Amino acid sequence: MFNLRWAEEGGFPASDRGAAYGDGLFETIRMHGNRGVLLSRHLDRMVRDAGRLGIPVSLTDLRKACTAAINRYYDRFINQQTDGDWVLKLTLTRGEGGRGYRPGPGVRPNLMVSAGPMPEAPPVAYGVAVDLSPVPLMVNPLLAGIKSLNRLEQVMAAREIEGDLFEVIMSDSAGNLVEGTRTNLLLKMSEGWVTPPARNLAVAGVLRQWVLERLRARGELVVERAVSIGDVLGADCRGLYLLNSVIGVVPARSLAGQDLPVDDGLATIFNPLELLE
Amino acid sequence: MFNLRWAEEGGFPASDRGAAYGDGLFETIRMHGNRGVLLSRHLDRMVRDAGRLGIPVSLTDLRKACTAAINRYYDRFINQQTDGDWVLKLTLTRGEGGRGYRPGPGVRPNLMVSAGPMPEAPPVAYGVAVDLSPVPLMVNPLLAGIKSLNRLEQVMAAREIEGDLFEVIMSDSAGNLVEGTRTNLLLKMSEGWVTPPARNLAVAGVLRQWVLERLRARGELVVERAVSIGDVLGADCRGLYLLNSVIGVVPARSLAGQDLPVDDGLATIFNPLELLE
Repeated sequence: MFNLRWAEEGGFPASDRGAAYGDGLFETIRMHGNRGVLLSRHLDRMVRDAGRLGIPVSLTDLRKACTAAINRYYDRFINQQTDGDWVLKLTLTRGEGGRGYRPGPGVRPNLMVSAGPMPEAPPVAYGVAVDLSPVPLMVNPLLAGIKSLNRLEQVMAAREIEGDLFEVIMSDSAGNLVEGTRTNLLLKMSEGWVTPPARNLAVAGVLRQWVLERLRARGELVVERAVSIGDVLGADCRGLYLLNSVIGVVPARSLAGQDLPVDDGLATIFNPLELLE
Repeated sequence: MFNLRWAEEGGFPASDRGAAYGDGLFETIRMHGNRGVLLSRHLDRMVRDAGRLGIPVSLTDLRKACTAAINRYYDRFINQQTDGDWVLKLTLTRGEGGRGYRPGPGVRPNLMVSAGPMPEAPPVAYGVAVDLSPVPLMVNPLLAGIKSLNRLEQVMAAREIEGDLFEVIMSDSAGNLVEGTRTNLLLKMSEGWVTPPARNLAVAGVLRQWVLERLRARGELVVERAVSIGDVLGADCRGLYLLNSVIGVVPARSLAGQDLPVDDGLATIFNPLELLE
């Protein structure tokens, strides 16, 4: 079991390993009233990836914390400020202390819970402008896909997002496009839907996984392979989509100043209100 | 200027970017009474690497914070518990808030200051046992050498340090030895002193830099190049040293269960009391 902490009642102890080393992970969940978009997938991912990091947490305890958070935030202030949309953030750290990097025995995790407003919606109908980031993305196979607290690469890349730019895409050392700072990539090509494989991703998003499953269930072909800049800018690309479980499915209308075809075929299969749990 | 926070008076705000994303960096300084080992190098490194991350901080302000910390901790409790040895930790984060990964404009950094006891000294006379870590180390060129708060790789590797084992060494994707979880590597070979180049390091230690300069000043040859397991276990290796500015210069007596020659030639040039400032 973890120590449950509410963000508005104080922060992390200075000796918390999340604050000291990024030794933890987080989920950011789009809420509508007392229900969350893909809530089960968020919680399942946190339990699974905490296990990969050796941080003990149970789905039952996480669900209880979510229920407490909904009771606390929904009535308290969210409902009066918005149309019922808000964002729930859960940050699970390994806990406090230890001998330097090495965790102490029996350390008890901390779960920090906070609520915030929905981010501004992107102009989906027209698509968004996307650029290439000069910040390389180095994914450690041991940590691939985990939404850990080690996000300095994303921070450094996101510093370049200004003006009308919605997102920047980071590439691996081989020059392949991997993901945006806060979005996964999906391309529509003649061979099918194309996306970088989960083992290459810094963060494997829950919306990405849901969309891939939904496409496959419809009988559409999904190919998980490396994606080059040429794939996106070439004549065979029919659309580039950015996926984020809070923001949704966002078509890109340009990459690095070059126009892309904008297709709303994917946006129509994603209705966040259908995914509330 | 930063907000100066004392660890014993409360922790990081939940919205601190250090706690949220590892968006910051730290220094751990060996103190003796009111002086610190290689203190100027620690502070210079923090200023330089904060600049690389785009976190504004001046050496003058850091020095003032150190003076305040020494006044606070030295008289308050350190002097009564130890022989005057203690460890000063400075954690500088980008500050609070922002839009997700993207920092807000004019965000004010937080500097968290804490004091702790010296770690237990290793049995230097006999050398220490070292193993190879199965955790790969992926160094982003943009962040190479920075003692940032993104240290999950080191945490995962350090979890395997048990019993008599003093350290584990992580390798890059090409299989070269890069560094320990908390130490840099230096080999004595017939070609000279050999160490992985700073551009390949996750953390470029201040003691490493000082030792390299001292060796070069003595006219000894220092070669910065990739180090293989064969280099360490081969007949040409005359000694493997682990460098950490708090612990010192520690010779290894074995790697992955294979004996190494132990030479105290390097330990004698490092006297921490000479490096107090």
